[in-house]
Amino acid sequence: MEQLGDKKWGFQRNQELEASSISVRGVLKQLMANRNEEDQRSTIPLGGADPSIYPSYQTTPFVADAVADAVRSFNFNSYASNVGIAEGRRAVAEHLSKDLPYQLSADDVYLTVGCTQAIEIVVSVLARPGANILLPRPGYPQYAARVGCSSLEARHFDLMPEKGWEVDLDSVEALADENTVAMVIINPSNPCGNVFTYQHLKKIAETARKLGIFVISDEVYAHLAFGSNIFVPMGVFGSIAPVLTLGSLSKRWIVPGWRLGWIVTSDLNGIFQESGFAESLRSHLEITTDPPTFMQGALTQILEQTKEDFFSKILNIMREDADFLYERIKEIPCLTCPHKPEGSMVVMVKLNLSLLEGVTDDVDFCMKLAREESVIVLPGIALGLKNWLRISFAVEHSLLDDALGRIKAFYNKHAKKE
Amino acid sequence: MEQLGDKKWGFQRNQELEASSISVRGVLKQLMANRNEEDQRSTIPLGGADPSIYPSYQTTPFVADAVADAVRSFNFNSYASNVGIAEGRRAVAEHLSKDLPYQLSADDVYLTVGCTQAIEIVVSVLARPGANILLPRPGYPQYAARVGCSSLEARHFDLMPEKGWEVDLDSVEALADENTVAMVIINPSNPCGNVFTYQHLKKIAETARKLGIFVISDEVYAHLAFGSNIFVPMGVFGSIAPVLTLGSLSKRWIVPGWRLGWIVTSDLNGIFQESGFAESLRSHLEITTDPPTFMQGALTQILEQTKEDFFSKILNIMREDADFLYERIKEIPCLTCPHKPEGSMVVMVKLNLSLLEGVTDDVDFCMKLAREESVIVLPGIALGLKNWLRISFAVEHSLLDDALGRIKAFYNKHAKKE
Ligand SMILES: Cc1ncc(COP(=O)(O)O)c(C=O)c1O
Ligand SMILES: Cc1ncc(COP(=O)(O)O)c(C=O)c1O
Repeated sequence: MEQLGDKKWGFQRNQELEASSISVRGVLKQLMANRNEEDQRSTIPLGGADPSIYPSYQTTPFVADAVADAVRSFNFNSYASNVGIAEGRRAVAEHLSKDLPYQLSADDVYLTVGCTQAIEIVVSVLARPGANILLPRPGYPQYAARVGCSSLEARHFDLMPEKGWEVDLDSVEALADENTVAMVIINPSNPCGNVFTYQHLKKIAETARKLGIFVISDEVYAHLAFGSNIFVPMGVFGSIAPVLTLGSLSKRWIVPGWRLGWIVTSDLNGIFQESGFAESLRSHLEITTDPPTFMQGALTQILEQTKEDFFSKILNIMREDADFLYERIKEIPCLTCPHKPEGSMVVMVKLNLSLLEGVTDDVDFCMKLAREESVIVLPGIALGLKNWLRISFAVEHSLLDDALGRIKAFYNKHAKKE
Repeated sequence: MEQLGDKKWGFQRNQELEASSISVRGVLKQLMANRNEEDQRSTIPLGGADPSIYPSYQTTPFVADAVADAVRSFNFNSYASNVGIAEGRRAVAEHLSKDLPYQLSADDVYLTVGCTQAIEIVVSVLARPGANILLPRPGYPQYAARVGCSSLEARHFDLMPEKGWEVDLDSVEALADENTVAMVIINPSNPCGNVFTYQHLKKIAETARKLGIFVISDEVYAHLAFGSNIFVPMGVFGSIAPVLTLGSLSKRWIVPGWRLGWIVTSDLNGIFQESGFAESLRSHLEITTDPPTFMQGALTQILEQTKEDFFSKILNIMREDADFLYERIKEIPCLTCPHKPEGSMVVMVKLNLSLLEGVTDDVDFCMKLAREESVIVLPGIALGLKNWLRISFAVEHSLLDDALGRIKAFYNKHAKKE
């Protein structure tokens, strides 16, 4: 019998596609693999944005009960409608409308398997050959990865560290042409940790209107704002330009494993309807998978009845940890944080390589830090910004303290001698 | 201020893509919309494959408790690994190995958001420009829809009603060329209701080996076989050709709303590894959304401890309902069922239009049946076979009885007078 391995099989890897698929998960895995197994200390992961395992960041039992009740009710065992079940959509519409000057309807809401699937779906619906989309740099790599799987071209505009990471609207205007379909913003910002002001969001909307493009506002960190800028949803400016708001339970409820998200249309001028976008979206949702029906059924309780205490307790912890990180970074000469973190769970820190000996770039820094100190931080290149680092402050306080001590020690060891 | 509606917006619909996205859900929605609202009788849906709302088909409380326990344990709130959590993968490997002549490892298993996402992921990973994939006709339209969203070309081979819906292997050989990557089979079959024999499955594997293509075996209806052919998983022939088995909890546990599925590699010759497919799959899974972590956590209990009673009770009900449908179809002259249903939840029935007056085709039949009798069945064209119907027998018995009475009445009303 011939050897099966020697046979020619029809499958060939699509290298081009794979190359575009940089993911936070993938990069973290490489860093984890580079650790020194002989290090007796435990690894401290400051590379992700999932504090759910830490006691201080545990979600409230109330939401787990809401899900358990929904699954035990036997009312949510069936396939859901492609757009989501009516009561779940209504719950999201009510919840988001509290922060808007108008009322969203259930029809504005489409339920998804986390914000991850919301991104995937929106990119797929916008895609057509020749079209392009504007993404922030630094950004969340899932956007570029999904755009890479589609027929869209990605163009990157800058966020400006020296201006509190505001959008460089001139670069947006310079990049856009008649084939630009949308621009993406992330607010509160992953990876920068800032929160956009009302005025800046309004300017973004006006720019989008001028260019004739949709605004995709990733608000997966909505309300995780603990500095002086309060969180303003982009939907407030749905009268200026059509806004797609993406969100989920993952971050605010600290249940990223639960996978319940949404796409919401805020568009007082009916552009999404008129242009056919809403119909394309519904049609695409017919062939995508859905969040579990009982998760959709639990939304009303979760969104309406989670106690304010829980949210404010978490915000207080995050504020303290963010401040703590910011102060401790000042003590590490090769790192500078241009903007004090005031939202999300992460912040960008600039790496000054000229103060280090034998560290060639951000990836090298992160790989050596993982190996020598068992501390994981994300290299900026994964987010589009070389020689920066993204550090998460949403971890148990004692670990954050320990990690910063280790980073300091790493600096001391590698500091350039005069 | 200019009218926003008059402005040119960058978005344009991708009509070509949308046209390829025929879905069961979408077609059913159109039929539902065609009902006569003045009909006082309740609508009887024989168009889908979701009996979870019916008392006879209710799932066992044990599995709902398993999910409730997992969500309340607080052990599964975090993001999962891209491939799924280890214990969930192990549970699927153990479960499927019971029917195989060898032992699967946890590494052969990738957890997905239902079989729907399994299809989406496998198609995406196989896709590259110029490649093609072989799909069964009639088939499950999700495959063609997903292929339409990719760079793959779909080619259709025939299933032969007069031969118990076996695969026409000559047409498979005629369609395949050096750019063919895989062929899809669905066993037990949606939409045909048959179950492939061991011998036929072996021939399929040998054909795939000869052609150098992977076999994708959709076993979402695994073990829902109640006739004389017992269910044999395609993985049994993983020594002959590389097999990707797709499955989920949806059908056998009657919880389609729960959205937990899997992709499993059965490949004793290591072709998936050697060809790079396994690595491409893992890399693609980094950027796809995941099933809720607590659903993955509940898998061990669900797969290991669901009582045999539950499965056999459901099989008995299905056998009775399938037999009942088969006998009653014989009394409706314009319908013939070439093969007695013996698996899945649905069966294909041929429409003899020459016996009807003023009914132009299968879509017309289904639209009029919805309007006049409030009975929903799926037109064959949605599955690739014009002037056939797909009828589900997995509904509460009294409803099935009532529906068949109404279809008979519909025939009587529209029968051609000599
Ligand atoms: C900016 C941003 N968008 C989307 C997501 C994905 O969120 P989800 O957990 O809801 O899929 C993340 C996760 O870290 C994120 O940081
Ligand atoms: C043949 C086939 N494959 C896949 C699916 C999707 O299954 P799931 O509910 O696991 O997404 C279905 C659903 O009806 C089906 O009939």
